[in-house]
Amino acid sequence: MDQLVTQLYRAKIFITLRPSVLDPAGTAVQSGLQHMGYDNVSQVRIGKYVEVTLAAADEAAARQQLDQMCDQLLANPVIENYRFEMELTL
Amino acid sequence: MDQLVTQLYRAKIFITLRPSVLDPAGTAVQSGLQHMGYDNVSQVRIGKYVEVTLAAADEAAARQQLDQMCDQLLANPVIENYRFEMELTL
Repeated sequence: MDQLVTQLYRAKIFITLRPSVLDPAGTAVQSGLQHMGYDNVSQVRIGKYVEVTLAAADEAAARQQLDQMCDQLLANPVIENYRFEMELTL
Repeated sequence: MDQLVTQLYRAKIFITLRPSVLDPAGTAVQSGLQHMGYDNVSQVRIGKYVEVTLAAADEAAARQQLDQMCDQLLANPVIENYRFEMELTL
């Protein structure tokens, strides 16, 4: 594999609290919405959305690096789940 | 339209800073990643991800309400863009 030839990938990472973890911020937003009249809202969960642009030799290498980044820095695996979508960019 | 018959929709809302707006948090994360050895990361932008479950008569009504919620509470239209995906839930 020639590491000198790299391609640019843009990843969209979605980080959410695990379902068993309480989300006080989400509850506050839901309460705010209900006070504004949106009483048809039954649940709000708040997460993070991160867009990362990175260079990698191929898609598998990019996915592996993104997994590591999420585990080490972007997400807290104890209380959060993450998933990502990736696309080639020019 | 019979408002008594409602369906439950789950919306995934992605809120991102407008491209012209600086993202210091994203820059800090990018710097952190580079210090950890991920020097192939060229851009990081951080946004919010909100999951909302709401009852509505039909999809058009749900979309209209979500647009209003985003404009009024969830996003700051001056500096942020939003988009959402929606699906029926049981």
